[in-house]
Amino acid sequence: MKPMNDEFRSAAEQLVEVGRALYARGMVPATSGNFSCRLSDGAMAITVSGRHKGRLTPTDIMRASAAGESLDGNRPSAETLLHVQIYRRFPEVRCVLHPHSVNATLISKNRRGSLELQDYELLKAFPGVDTHEARVQVPIFANDQDIARLAAEVDAWMDAHDGPVHGYLIAGHGFYTWGASVDDTMRHIEAFEFLFDCELQQMRLGTV
Amino acid sequence: MKPMNDEFRSAAEQLVEVGRALYARGMVPATSGNFSCRLSDGAMAITVSGRHKGRLTPTDIMRASAAGESLDGNRPSAETLLHVQIYRRFPEVRCVLHPHSVNATLISKNRRGSLELQDYELLKAFPGVDTHEARVQVPIFANDQDIARLAAEVDAWMDAHDGPVHGYLIAGHGFYTWGASVDDTMRHIEAFEFLFDCELQQMRLGTV
Amino acid sequence: MKPMNDEFRSAAEQLVEVGRALYARGMVPATSGNFSCRLSDGAMAITVSGRHKGRLTPTDIMRASAAGESLDGNRPSAETLLHVQIYRRFPEVRCVLHPHSVNATLISKNRRGSLELQDYELLKAFPGVDTHEARVQVPIFANDQDIARLAAEVDAWMDAHDGPVHGYLIAGHGFYTWGASVDDTMRHIEAFEFLFDCELQQMRLGTV
Amino acid sequence: MKPMNDEFRSAAEQLVEVGRALYARGMVPATSGNFSCRLSDGAMAITVSGRHKGRLTPTDIMRASAAGESLDGNRPSAETLLHVQIYRRFPEVRCVLHPHSVNATLISKNRRGSLELQDYELLKAFPGVDTHEARVQVPIFANDQDIARLAAEVDAWMDAHDGPVHGYLIAGHGFYTWGASVDDTMRHIEAFEFLFDCELQQMRLGTV
Repeated sequence: MKPMNDEFRSAAEQLVEVGRALYARGMVPATSGNFSCRLSDGAMAITVSGRHKGRLTPTDIMRASAAGESLDGNRPSAETLLHVQIYRRFPEVRCVLHPHSVNATLISKNRRGSLELQDYELLKAFPGVDTHEARVQVPIFANDQDIARLAAEVDAWMDAHDGPVHGYLIAGHGFYTWGASVDDTMRHIEAFEFLFDCELQQMRLGTV
Repeated sequence: MKPMNDEFRSAAEQLVEVGRALYARGMVPATSGNFSCRLSDGAMAITVSGRHKGRLTPTDIMRASAAGESLDGNRPSAETLLHVQIYRRFPEVRCVLHPHSVNATLISKNRRGSLELQDYELLKAFPGVDTHEARVQVPIFANDQDIARLAAEVDAWMDAHDGPVHGYLIAGHGFYTWGASVDDTMRHIEAFEFLFDCELQQMRLGTV
Repeated sequence: MKPMNDEFRSAAEQLVEVGRALYARGMVPATSGNFSCRLSDGAMAITVSGRHKGRLTPTDIMRASAAGESLDGNRPSAETLLHVQIYRRFPEVRCVLHPHSVNATLISKNRRGSLELQDYELLKAFPGVDTHEARVQVPIFANDQDIARLAAEVDAWMDAHDGPVHGYLIAGHGFYTWGASVDDTMRHIEAFEFLFDCELQQMRLGTV
Repeated sequence: MKPMNDEFRSAAEQLVEVGRALYARGMVPATSGNFSCRLSDGAMAITVSGRHKGRLTPTDIMRASAAGESLDGNRPSAETLLHVQIYRRFPEVRCVLHPHSVNATLISKNRRGSLELQDYELLKAFPGVDTHEARVQVPIFANDQDIARLAAEVDAWMDAHDGPVHGYLIAGHGFYTWGASVDDTMRHIEAFEFLFDCELQQMRLGTV
């Protein structure tokens, strides 16, 4: 077990604050959700399995290898392999967050295959999007307790689709998004949550 | 009247905090709701009748016997016998909470007999549930001002149903849930509230 | 202008806190809403016209006579005569509050004549109601900028209806409720707001 | 670059606080929204492009000319010309705020041409409106990444319409409103947000 260094400590403090902020918005109820940062040596700071995300302390954040194996004896989140898949595919990504909101859960249960977002100014919150006319696709995967299999499915979808992808939904389970920093990833969460809310209300109005 | 001991004091402080947290989320409006903890001698710490749950102090928590009778001269919640029924049936349970949310009220008025929950990752918040494919049944009882009769009805339903039960609804009246600790029970409240919200919105979308 | 005495000061402080609490819940947007307490000499402490209810200070509360006339040179709320009508009719009432919520506005615009509330446990929050089977009627009046005429209409409705009344709605304008103390009246607001929310969602579900 | 004077500093502090308050209500998600004040020399204090509105500091507020050009080397909000158009047309206006709420986004996507508001007491929050019977028109413009063209379209609409206008919507993009002070403009935001919420729920109820 490595001594806790400044980079790890900073990542842990940021993830504690992420948990507090998302919990206050009802986005990580019960013990749902998990969060990680990639460290400069390729390892991860990631939430320990089963902790309440609204009341994290730095001791609830552990160190795992790039392959998702525990480096300090703690048990990492059951969904660690989904974080591994994102870090392997996107070298620029330094943070992966998985909130579990009502809006994401409902969208994921009421759309098939993927959600297409267009004609929202807020799409410009995602990197590389500079007009509301862009089309952002958010794939929806079936829920699966076999996380290795789910990670492989996510990876296969990304292989098969050329365009940029900024997040995905798991049916009945919330969403994953990522970014070059914790702040960027939190901005993506705010944008997705706003857009899911809009799309859900459009469905209720019968206009989608 | 027994002197207040450390265990009682700790339970009272936890229930005060439960009230503050649930009130902030709109789950115990007016003077609705009631809360209890089982103590190691079998007695209960329970909310005094008619107090505002968002502004409890330790003096609003009283001591009642395992049968629900006052042990300190205060009048316990009108619904004390519903707490007694749960403690008698489940020896591992140490906390019973009854919030009164809009979502629970609406679900209880718009479904008949019971609510069936399935295909939600958040079901794993309940003890013994390890997959979203589990089916969790939440019975719905008619409201009744005769609490002894209502407690007997709850008990009879539990006699007649083998599977685990994590909570129940009373029509137009909120829900009851319980657990091995205050934290566990609060986690069940968060999970139920999320799931009631989802189910209600599914009904609005016409997909349930 | 009378010197500020302890009773007035206490009433003013309570109304300042009412404003802060209702504003935080979105129930007095912009400069809507008004609040009063009856003092022991029959005069009222009431909000000065046009102030922002979320940021009141004791200087935003003025003294008016039992007939609604200014006793200290400030201009009282434009709707003072609605407070006068309630205090004249109900000798036990010491507080009248008028919040302006989205839920109340929508109920008032989508129901005709009155709202009938039944089969809600929360009805027991109102004085004299001891079962969910009670029927509570909430009259809805057309909005009117002539407040004397509106007050007369409210009074005539109360003359014509025997049963107890705990509040009323004005179309597109919010609701009035009252009680024997500020705390009692706040409890009635919490109960009405919960019940309006439920009824509105029942309408959306197509079950009312 | 001019030295920061008291008037600019006060405006900057007020806009920082506006950002914090609107962010807390979910009205400026991600880095959406922008805010300005007109200074007595005709220049503007305006938000720097791309900053998170919930965490502004005075250094995120810059000085721009009446024509919208940077006076201090910072890059002003991409939508600065929309602020310029309002200040040019209305000499009494000292503040322009652009929030980006879910309600405004939905109204703007589900109504054609303009929103007509009537029979709401809260319309009296707007200057010159003294009865709920007034009709307030809120034009809706198509979204456009060419802000000069969009500003010209807004100006042309105002040329063609005689009555007072208190705000406008941009499809999928939020709304603009303005006033004689920051407080007045915040009051208009509260009123519009309440009215958009009501109208949206009326649409869901099928009554608009």
